[in-house]
Amino acid sequence: MVLEYVTDPSDPRLTDYTRMRDVELRKSLEAERGLFLAEGEKVIRRAIGAGHPIRSVLTTDRWLASLRDVLGDATVYVVSDEVMAGVAGFPVHRGALASMERLPLPSVETLLKSLAGGPRRLLVLEDLADHSNVGAIFRSAAALGVDAVVLSPRCADPLYRRAVKVSMGAVFSIRYARMDDWFRGLAQLREAGFRTLALTPDQTATPLDAVALTERVALLLGAEGDGLSSHWLEEADEAVCIRMSAAAMASGVDSLNVVAAAAIACHDLMRSAG
Amino acid sequence: MVLEYVTDPSDPRLTDYTRMRDVELRKSLEAERGLFLAEGEKVIRRAIGAGHPIRSVLTTDRWLASLRDVLGDATVYVVSDEVMAGVAGFPVHRGALASMERLPLPSVETLLKSLAGGPRRLLVLEDLADHSNVGAIFRSAAALGVDAVVLSPRCADPLYRRAVKVSMGAVFSIRYARMDDWFRGLAQLREAGFRTLALTPDQTATPLDAVALTERVALLLGAEGDGLSSHWLEEADEAVCIRMSAAAMASGVDSLNVVAAAAIACHDLMRSAG
Repeated sequence: MVLEYVTDPSDPRLTDYTRMRDVELRKSLEAERGLFLAEGEKVIRRAIGAGHPIRSVLTTDRWLASLRDVLGDATVYVVSDEVMAGVAGFPVHRGALASMERLPLPSVETLLKSLAGGPRRLLVLEDLADHSNVGAIFRSAAALGVDAVVLSPRCADPLYRRAVKVSMGAVFSIRYARMDDWFRGLAQLREAGFRTLALTPDQTATPLDAVALTERVALLLGAEGDGLSSHWLEEADEAVCIRMSAAAMASGVDSLNVVAAAAIACHDLMRSAG
Repeated sequence: MVLEYVTDPSDPRLTDYTRMRDVELRKSLEAERGLFLAEGEKVIRRAIGAGHPIRSVLTTDRWLASLRDVLGDATVYVVSDEVMAGVAGFPVHRGALASMERLPLPSVETLLKSLAGGPRRLLVLEDLADHSNVGAIFRSAAALGVDAVVLSPRCADPLYRRAVKVSMGAVFSIRYARMDDWFRGLAQLREAGFRTLALTPDQTATPLDAVALTERVALLLGAEGDGLSSHWLEEADEAVCIRMSAAAMASGVDSLNVVAAAAIACHDLMRSAG
């Protein structure tokens, strides 16, 4: 490790970390520099384990020791709690932030080819806007045995700070790719042998737990609020739903949030994959 | 409606709404005054429908019309978008906020007595700290036919602003009560005929979807991070888990977030209740 003590929150060496609360600023900063931020010891270890090179680490004296064994020759900026809070824009409780380099994502084609025979479970996220939701869904997908995730071109970035944090690092343990053609996206999945199931709150669709699931299944999840686009709903092989309580529907509680729906759906998919 | 136009964000008439981002301030303000905030037309309508009296409404000219039919003789403070953002501390997208009065909660005993015969499903939340999680869990519980929710004495408040918002108003459609004795809490549930199941990530516990569920089941969910207390784990009739992927466990993704776990569990409970 190369330790550098920094006492000024506006020190230019800390720009990778500046104003973490500002979503727009961070999105452009991260895209421009090809970086992302990992927060807390556990997540940083997973990011390193997944092969992401370290640009630098920002931490305080108190937390430095916990990461010493994995940091190699990385540059570590050591600051006070006050400077840490000043840089981030809020108090950072987990003690360490790492600025890491992104790795090139595989194409959807490459990803699909890498999924060899046997039952395979894909999750396909269309235009989710909320990074916490994307992170939470990756965590469920990883825990429940989903083989890979495919993102629509406009879906929120799984490596954005909040997504990484909420996923607890699961974004590093499950493979994913981003479509470059939304309109043709489902056709590409079908050509690779995946049956596409569109998840909808519509209770007249087939309940997911009653569907005879084939070997290769891609479950499509739509955006918060609007759900799946009509194009994907029409293109999909079948619309499926999660059964809800009739009493709840009658009282107007007529949908689940996307994290809850994804969890139930992944659980059903795992069960059917045996 | 009594319309009052307000141009100064620090006007004392707006104190119910001030600094909504400040969790500690709001918790004390809401407790002290016995109020809570509902955000957006849909949620405000549900709160009114559940019988909560309106203290006042804060909105802009543009959104006023959408609520006109339900506001009765309520006082409505009409402000510009800028004043709205100044009061809240951030831009308010849903156009209307209502300060509403809380209603007395039933005791746990009264709540349990109100659940007559037949299969009954209770969710019991122990010390959840995150209001968004509490709101999301109420939404899943309501949609998936849970009959009622019981909160531990220290569990986060379902009527806190974020919880109400994330629940989409489901906190008004499902009955709940708060225990006043954490230590004796499970005994009280058992005495009312509920079998208590402690949900744990421990994969050596009985998978929930393989448990023969009796008529009256109370599922216990623990706090983010720490999970259930050892007291409740030991006191419960049985420990249950949600099956996770063996590969995921091996790679360190060894738990679900509490919203995902609750959704899967409620779904399993609903299925077994028929």
